[in-house]
Parts: sequence; C-alpha cells; structure tokens
Amino acid sequence: MSQTIPSEQIPTFAANALRALAMDGVQQANSGHPGQPMGMADVAGVLWNKFLHHNPKNPKWFDRDRFVLSGGHGSMLLYGLLHLTGYDLSMDELKRFRQIHSKTPGHPEYGHTDGVEVTTGPLGQGVSNGVGMALAERMLAARFNKPGHEVINHFTYVFCGDGDMQEGVVHESATLAGHLGLERLIVLFDDNGITIDGSTELSTSEDVITRFQGYGWHVMSINGHDMAAIENAIKDAKKSDKPTLIACKTVIGFGAPTRAGTSKAHGEPLGAEEIKGAREKLGWKWEPFVIPDEVAQYWSQAKTRGAQSESEWNTRVEAYKKAFPAEAKELARIVAGKDPEGWQAKLDTLRQTWIKEKPTLATRASGGKAIEVLAEGFSDLVGGSADLTPSNNTRAGIFKDIGKRQFDGRYIRYGIREHGMGAVMNGLALHGGVVPYGGTFLVFADYMRPTLRLAALMGLRVVYVFTHDSIGVGEDGPTHQPVEHYASLRAIPNLAVFRPADALETLDSWEAAMNLKTGPSALLLTRQNLPANPAYVKGGVAKGGYVLADAPDGLPLKAIVAATGSEVHLALEAQKTLAAEKIGVRVISLPCFELFDAQPEAYRKEVLPPNITVRVGVEVGIKMGWEGIIGNTGKMVCMTGYGASAPAVELFKHFGITAEAVVQAVKAQL
Amino acid sequence: MSQTIPSEQIPTFAANALRALAMDGVQQANSGHPGQPMGMADVAGVLWNKFLHHNPKNPKWFDRDRFVLSGGHGSMLLYGLLHLTGYDLSMDELKRFRQIHSKTPGHPEYGHTDGVEVTTGPLGQGVSNGVGMALAERMLAARFNKPGHEVINHFTYVFCGDGDMQEGVVHESATLAGHLGLERLIVLFDDNGITIDGSTELSTSEDVITRFQGYGWHVMSINGHDMAAIENAIKDAKKSDKPTLIACKTVIGFGAPTRAGTSKAHGEPLGAEEIKGAREKLGWKWEPFVIPDEVAQYWSQAKTRGAQSESEWNTRVEAYKKAFPAEAKELARIVAGKDPEGWQAKLDTLRQTWIKEKPTLATRASGGKAIEVLAEGFSDLVGGSADLTPSNNTRAGIFKDIGKRQFDGRYIRYGIREHGMGAVMNGLALHGGVVPYGGTFLVFADYMRPTLRLAALMGLRVVYVFTHDSIGVGEDGPTHQPVEHYASLRAIPNLAVFRPADALETLDSWEAAMNLKTGPSALLLTRQNLPANPAYVKGGVAKGGYVLADAPDGLPLKAIVAATGSEVHLALEAQKTLAAEKIGVRVISLPCFELFDAQPEAYRKEVLPPNITVRVGVEVGIKMGWEGIIGNTGKMVCMTGYGASAPAVELFKHFGITAEAVVQAVKAQL
Repeated sequence: MSQTIPSEQIPTFAANALRALAMDGVQQANSGHPGQPMGMADVAGVLWNKFLHHNPKNPKWFDRDRFVLSGGHGSMLLYGLLHLTGYDLSMDELKRFRQIHSKTPGHPEYGHTDGVEVTTGPLGQGVSNGVGMALAERMLAARFNKPGHEVINHFTYVFCGDGDMQEGVVHESATLAGHLGLERLIVLFDDNGITIDGSTELSTSEDVITRFQGYGWHVMSINGHDMAAIENAIKDAKKSDKPTLIACKTVIGFGAPTRAGTSKAHGEPLGAEEIKGAREKLGWKWEPFVIPDEVAQYWSQAKTRGAQSESEWNTRVEAYKKAFPAEAKELARIVAGKDPEGWQAKLDTLRQTWIKEKPTLATRASGGKAIEVLAEGFSDLVGGSADLTPSNNTRAGIFKDIGKRQFDGRYIRYGIREHGMGAVMNGLALHGGVVPYGGTFLVFADYMRPTLRLAALMGLRVVYVFTHDSIGVGEDGPTHQPVEHYASLRAIPNLAVFRPADALETLDSWEAAMNLKTGPSALLLTRQNLPANPAYVKGGVAKGGYVLADAPDGLPLKAIVAATGSEVHLALEAQKTLAAEKIGVRVISLPCFELFDAQPEAYRKEVLPPNITVRVGVEVGIKMGWEGIIGNTGKMVCMTGYGASAPAVELFKHFGITAEAVVQAVKAQL
Repeated sequence: MSQTIPSEQIPTFAANALRALAMDGVQQANSGHPGQPMGMADVAGVLWNKFLHHNPKNPKWFDRDRFVLSGGHGSMLLYGLLHLTGYDLSMDELKRFRQIHSKTPGHPEYGHTDGVEVTTGPLGQGVSNGVGMALAERMLAARFNKPGHEVINHFTYVFCGDGDMQEGVVHESATLAGHLGLERLIVLFDDNGITIDGSTELSTSEDVITRFQGYGWHVMSINGHDMAAIENAIKDAKKSDKPTLIACKTVIGFGAPTRAGTSKAHGEPLGAEEIKGAREKLGWKWEPFVIPDEVAQYWSQAKTRGAQSESEWNTRVEAYKKAFPAEAKELARIVAGKDPEGWQAKLDTLRQTWIKEKPTLATRASGGKAIEVLAEGFSDLVGGSADLTPSNNTRAGIFKDIGKRQFDGRYIRYGIREHGMGAVMNGLALHGGVVPYGGTFLVFADYMRPTLRLAALMGLRVVYVFTHDSIGVGEDGPTHQPVEHYASLRAIPNLAVFRPADALETLDSWEAAMNLKTGPSALLLTRQNLPANPAYVKGGVAKGGYVLADAPDGLPLKAIVAATGSEVHLALEAQKTLAAEKIGVRVISLPCFELFDAQPEAYRKEVLPPNITVRVGVEVGIKMGWEGIIGNTGKMVCMTGYGASAPAVELFKHFGITAEAVVQAVKAQL
C-alpha cells in the first residue's frame, strides 16, 4: 500500500510510526504497554530527529548523547526508535517483542540490545542513572576538555513518567543534580496524569514543577503533542546552566479512540478494534509493521547525521592529539574501555609493607589506605559516601570534592541518599570513563538494594564500601547492626560480597573487586580493630576461600573451622586452644563465597576435604548460606536474631560469638 | 548545690537540663550524639511543656499525642524528656546510656522503653511513621467521632533533621501526607545546616520550604532557639488544615563553646573541657545527672497535666458510651488492642467452599478473595497498594478509598511509593486501632526493605502482599522477576514469609499472618493460575510445612520432594511419574519456613524423616536457605541466576523448572 505524505506532515507521521509499532508490537506479543509510547511519540520524534547526537552504526561512540527511557515498560518506544534510526534491530525482532531469545525483551536490557543505554523498568532508576551519566560527562569534560578542544561534549536526555516522579530515589538524585548544577541533563516528563490505579489524583496532588524549583532545576511545562513547543523547550533547556525538567502534558495512548487518556491504555494490548480505530484517528493506513518509505527515509537520516557527528568528533580528537598528546592518550584509553596501567603495582607496594608490619587495623581503616593507593594509581576511580565519609574512610587525601559546577574533583558528596548514590553510581558506570565506588553503613545496604540488583543484572563494575559490618558497631544498637545482610547480599546473583579478615585481605579484596569487570562488588568492613592474620596467603582472596592455617604441630586433621572477617581471629584462637588439647583443626578464611564457588571442584575439595565432616562456621550474622560449607552435621557460631546496644566487646560475649564457643562447637562433634 | 532560678528563666533552664543530660549521658557512655539534643532542646521544651498531651503514668493512653524522634541518634533528648516528665525511666538508666540491658539503648527502641513510640535511627523512617500515625488518627476519628463526641483527638509531632529531609522515603510519605491533607501532623525540622560530612552545603542546595509547598504542606521557618516563636509556630500549625513543616533554625550542639555549629558536635562525646565550657555558657551549675528542684518540678507538671488529660478523655468516652453504646464497645475493644471477634468464621466459610470446589486460581486471585472476606470480618483491616491495585488484587469491593480529607475509607492509594508505603504501614501499626496490609510486586520488596526490617525488629503486625512472585511474571522479564527474594526475605529475622501453593493454602496463609501479632508477614503470590492441591491438610500451613501427599499405592518411601508455591504441583506431577515406576515419593509443601522451623523437632522429623536422604527441593528461586531441608546430598530444581522475557510457560521450560527435572533429580540419587 502506498500513498504520498505531504512533506510538512512527515514529522507527524514519523511520530505515528512509533505509535503504530507500539500498538502492533504489543498486540502481537499479547502483552506490553502501548500507552506511554503513544503518548510520548511526538516528544520522541522531535528529540531524536532534531537534537539527539548518536550514531546508529556505532552505538558505543563515546561522545554520543545518552538517551534513557526511565519508564522501561514503554520499551516498544525505544525499540521503534532504534529500528527506525538504523540500529541493528530488524523488524523481525520487533515482531518477536517479548519472546524468548529476542532482542526485544519486555523491558530494555543493557548489553542485550544495541543502543539500549541502560536496563530500566524498576521505576525511578532511569532518571537517577541519567543523573550519573550527566555527572560522568561533566567530570570527563573537566578532566579532558581544553580551551578550543571540546572532546567531551554531550547531553543526557531522560524520558520519565509519574511513577518515576513519585519514587524516592528520584527525589534523592534530582536534588543532587540540582545541587551540582548538571546543566547537560534534560528530563522530559510524560505528564499524562495516569497511573495503573487510575488518575494520579488518586494518590498525588503534588506540584512537581514547584518541587523541582526547590531542587534548583530549570523547569518548564509544555503541550507534549505540540512539536514546535517541544523543539523550543529542548532548545531552551540546552541553554540553561541548570538541569532541566520539561513537563510534557500528554495523553496516554494518544490516538486510541476509547482508551486514550485512561489507565486502560497503560499496560495491556489495545485489542484489534481499538487499534483499528486508532489507525483511523491517526490516519495511519499501513499494515502492522509496515513503515511507508517517506517516513522510513525521514527516520533513517539519523545514520547520515550520526556518521557526520562522529566524524566531526574524530576530527576534534585528532586536533586534540596534536595539541595534548598525553591527555589524548588517556582519552583514547578511556574510550577503548581500558583500565590505567600499573595500578596493581602501587597496591603491591602497600602489600609488601603490610606483610612486614602486620598492622592491627579496622578493615574500614585498611580499606581507606587501599583507597589512598588506588586513588593515585587508578585515575578513573571516583569515590563518594552517603554522608559517612569519616566513618567509611572513603575519601583519599588527593581527592578534591565535586561541587556545584565544580567537576574537576573525584569525590562525590552524595548526601544522606543511599538509594540515589547507588543509582547515580550505576549511571556513572554505564556512561563509562569513570569507575565508581561509594560508602555507607552495611545495614543501609537495604536502602540501596534495588540499585545493587540492577548493577548485578547489568554487569556493572561498581564497588560498595559497606562499613560497620556487624554487632561490632556496638552502642548504636540493632538498627545499625547488620545480621541478615551477609546472606541477603550473597543472595543477589552476580554480586561479589567480600568480607576480609585483616588489612591484607582487605587490600586483596579491593584488588579483586577492581578486577571484576562483569559485575559489582561489595566490601564488608569492620568498625573495630582486627589483628593481622598470622600469615599472608598469596592469591587466597582471589580464590574466595583458602586454607589460612592448617592443623598445627603435625596434628592429624580432625576438624575444619571456616570464618570470615572479624571472626577469623576467633577461629585462629580456637585452633590454638584445641591444639593444646591435641585436636588438629584447619582454619579456612572465606572472604568471598562467590569467588570460592567459582573455583574448580578439585580446589574446593582440597580446601574442604569431604572426609572431614567435623566443621564449624563462624560469622557474626545469620546461618543462611553457610550450609554448603559446614554440611548437615556441622555447627555454626553465629547470630540468630537482632543485636543490641552495648560496647562491641560485650556484645560479642553476650551473643556468644567467641573463640570458646568455637572450641565447644568443635568438641561437640568429636 | 542549690540556687534559686528566677521563674521566668525556668523554661530556659528546663531546656538546658535536656542539654546537660545529653552531654553528660554521652560523655558517660563515651559514645553517642550530643549535637541534636542540644540543638533541639528549646523546641522540645516548648512542645513538651506547652502542647504535648500525654500521660507519663500511662504511656499507652490511647488518645495521647504521638511524639516521634525521627533522628533516633539523638536518643538522649528523648530519654531526658521521658525521665523529666515522669515516665518509668530513672536517672540510673540515663547513667547507663548505651550499656547492655539498659532501658537507654543507643537508638530508641519501641517496646523496650516506656514512652518510646517507635524505633528510630535509620533516617527518614520516623517522619514517614509519623505520617502513618497521623493517618491512623484521622481514620479512627472518622470511624468513631460523632458530633460533640471527639473520642479520637490527638496530634502527631515529629522531630527530624537534614538526613531525614534528604532520604527518598520522606519524599514519598510527605507528598502523600500533603495529598491526604493530614492536618494533625506537625513536623519540626532541626534545620541546623550540619551533617556528618560537614556543612549541608557539601551535598545540598535544596529549598526544603519550597519543596514542601509543592507537596501541599503548610510551611514556616523560625528561630529554633526563640521560645515565643516556637510556641506561636506550633499554635499556628495546630490551626492549619494541612500538615505543617516548621523549619527550626538551630545551632547543632547549642551551648558547646567550640563545637556548636560544627559537625564535631554531631556524633561523639564533647569531652570534659568542652562540657565544662558548655556548662559555663549555659549557666548550668549542677553536677552531671543532677537536676535542680525548680526545673524538676517544672517538668514534672506533665504528670498532673497528663492525668488531667486522660481523665477528661475518660469523661468523654463515658458520654460516648451512653450516646453510642455499640460504637463505644468497638472503641473499647480497639483501645484494649483486641481483634474483632468472629473473623475466622467468615474465612472458614470460604475454606469449606474451596475444599469442595477445588478452584484453579492464581494465588494473587485467591488472596484477593481472602481479602474480600477479611474486609468484612476484620473491621480494623486497612488495605492498600503501591499503584498496583488491579495486579495485586488488594482492594476489597466493600472498601472505600482514603482521599484528600476523606478518612472514612479503608483503602489507601499509596502511589508508586513502595518505601513510603512500608513506612506508613509501620506508623499505622504503631498507632494501633488499624491493621495494615499493602501490595506491590515481589521484586519491589527491595524498594521497601528497610521498612520490613524495622517492622520485624519492632514486632509489628503488618502484612505485605507481594504478587508476581517468580519468572511466572513472564514477558516483563528479569527486572520484574524475583529470584533471590525468597532467600533475602527469609533472611530477615522475625519476618514470616508465606508462599502458598493453591487457593486454600493462600487462605490459610492469610489466617496465619493475621494471627501473628508479634511480627510482620509477607505473602508471596503468583501472577499465574495454579491448580488446587489434591487434598486439603487442615493446620498444615500453620505449621509451616507438612506432608501434602505421601508415597502412593503403598510404595515404600524412597525420596522426599519438598516445594513451595507454584512448584508444588510440579512435585505432585513428579510423584505420579515416579509412582508409575514404583518409586515411592513423599511430597512436602513448605509454605512458611519460619513457622516450620518453630515446630517441635519431633514434628519436623516426622515430616522429614532423617533416614530418607534422597531429597529434592523445588522452588523457582535460588537455592540459598534450602540446604537445611535437602541436606548435603539432596538436589535442587531451582534458578541459578536472573530470569528472561518470554511467556511464563516457556520460561519454566527454558530454566528447567519442570516435573521432569524433579523426576531426574530424584532418580539421580537412587
């Protein structure tokens, strides 16, 4: 079927193409969300055709604008955009929307589909990731750009909805964005007044514009179906020295004859009748998944523009190379996604010192010293804390703070915003060029848990510094004492959880975390001092678990005691006591269950010989997750419920986390 | 030491008494937070002496004003107030601040110290709990008050700080409070400009007042050391028809000569020198823990006022009894903390129907039907959802929505605010008179996790309805498919996690959850239909785990297959297949691990005979937590990582969660 579309109407038809693909994709899948793509199609059309710098033929071009669809349920909008602008996403893939092994899963998945910048779906995350991306851009611009050489020069555009606006994580990240003055961040809010339950009036009467003014944002409200207004708003936003919120008044499911403007348009197929009506209303005469040539051509100009943009950037980079060869080399390294060289050597110097000195330190303190060394050797490393800097020991002396329009630092004062910190770190990692870590108390890992899961799901290298990792917190009491957190963090697939036992294990944990490029790591560190292990076992931490001290004095091996972190020294003490009674015990340190589980079976059996069934696990958390180590008949010296408020030393006694308890637990099995 | 204090100066000295106790308590403990109590002492003095209706001799008097110290780290402020106004908290207890078994733990603990309304410390929670309390008050007022009979008539006052303001959960709950017009909520914000890292300027430039205006609050900013201003502000707040935020400009550590106004005043003892200087500056001439008579007397008037207030209320209740005897009886029941009678009978009627009909239903649907029956029989039950009402099946037909200044309903539209929902539910439960439940998708339990932990720590009866509990979600993909959540929720001490297998187990899980008055329950429910179990085992769910179907056809018992929720029918299918091959298998349903673990050992051994070591666990989540059931040699049919986007039926096959896999796992052990 062919028809000639008057050229002035092509932008409208281009937007309607997105609507049609969304309706048809959802209908074909018999599952999905047509409402948001149909509502935001005009905004998307203007943004992608008039503003967005990107290269469909090189989705990873470093200086591209970032586009985030925070309401990932509207994935058909993004898939439509990627297909039409020429990314490697065929119409066949759009037809296989939400089917197994397709490139078009229900929510956009980072690393799975070219051009998808971030996995979205859990609301609030995308906006907050956008804050991280916009921050990374400014930080790299501060690091690399020189007068006349704008080698880092792009914007971050985010589409979001009412759900994002209601989520607390957006409050946290948006107010931070306002504080920092992230002028390259432009959020286009699908202000359609509808959520799943019905009208937003059911649950909110907030004046979002006023709120964002309070955050220090540049704010606008426009008709999201008026293309000229959209264009002017984005132009205006690009000129602002603040982050911009453009509230786009839209009609959810725009074009659907009976469902437009209702919650029925949100999350289910429209049905054949409604789609037919929408086609009529929109003047869309083509069959499902058919795009008329004029419209296809209009969209495909993105390829030419993209090639042009990248080529111009290459020219700029060439000029930069000549003027600033050293910086250009660093830039090239970052663009290639490579780590700086030699950072391990600096860590190794500290390692050799500690092997000699055997320092008694809280692991948060040895972690702080490791950070000092990494800060020097790993130039892309960017730290921060959720307002616990002096407690988390996260700030290296050479770091300068990031502040309002001050992006030449490497330390981010996230404020008391754990969830925002997690989401911003994900955005930093997604952008690339920076490697983020951030600190808070372990118990508050709960506040940022959704971001840990997404980092693990996306395979992002983000490092969490979780200090105050047990009842060792002491007087602050049970609200601040993690007990279930070892288990609950180990439960997250693809998150590596490290709980080092002394300074050297802490240093090695940091190194292992930096080497894990396919997922996040959590470092669980003590508030209280810990003695140095009697021996340093090279490579032990990298294997996740290792024999720290075998049965001494030639005693035959009778039992295994396995421990982590602050309980390793209790295991060693118990080993001594038992040796005096001629009972031979091996002490295993298990700083990282995930790495240990990934070792060959032979190694694991060497560490934990199956014939030694007398086993004790020692960890000042709940038992869950230890059964694989101690087996059916083994015993745990552990917590069974919440902690209490008292000096730490008393609490370990009170809850029976002692060397004596370990001794008894071994003897009970002999 | 004695001196006469001029009577007009007594209020100032009364506030300084709080400052002295905070300095001295923290110093004695050598641990704690003097800054906030010293900064907020004037505000506390005015509020507690001029406004707060409470009865120190009956801390549980139902119509008392609620006072929440959201920044629980300033616990010495609360302990000082409780001691001085005559609660059962002796000076000796104040001297044992932060020591084991004292009534003065580092953060205030609900249920541990009389007069502590809520456990606080994790920031943002207290403010949000206050929203729940203020909502409960309005709901009960709507339920019970009659013209001329104000039997429910109190305010909720919250002290909070910069940390609370930065936390996302406060955004969520505060904007909800504004939406609902919770005029009885008055938040006094310790606007001291200091956090742990230093000046708040490090991390925020937000205009909090403007933000709260955007939320629809009544807002004021005052000098927090000007007692007349404080009094006027609270008077004004009490007249408003909106929730009120009073930003009190204070100096953290007010009185400390060198540390006042700095982050050094926040979280560590001031030291002897600084305390000496503060005593001089404040004109406080008394020894540590000594309160001059005039000041003690001034504070202790709270007892007289409290007795008077309660007595007046009793008179009102007497009049109410005469005018509205039926309502008065209900009120008396609620005040006594008793559940309505007969609610189980209504559930039982539905149970009998289902035993006959054996319905095939998604457990979210059977859960919805259980809610319908509970809504009728359990008049205190109050539901809600984080904008997933049609998906969670949480709204009973007889429920009316709570809305702006409409409090005569029983259904709360929480909006897309999971964390806020959790914290508001905690506030509702803490207030008493209402029993809250709320729904969202299981994967978003992560968003509200800090509130689950606090509900469990406080022992609150709150019910979480977590639907869409596995890859059974289907096309929405891995962002919406829980895999680690069974383990991570079971990890929380004192949270009962139910995963029922069919309609009857769902009903019984609801009943068990309602009967658990000492902690929260989570119901994990499917999106997809499940067949009815072949038999109903009475009391099975209440024991957490039970023999659903023993080895059939007189076959000797060779293996045990244990399963939960949507995998129970796979276990039963495998049982049949194996029976055809003359292999006798027992199927165990394990709807609640926590209740099963609490059974006598004899029962557990009866269900899981130790001599039957061929065991298979089936659950569409990770293995963690199952080792205790299947033992060292057992096998799991389970997930090992994240899900995918595809129709649910395909996903179960793709990930190998099938009856066939169960059969193979049994055979592999024979």
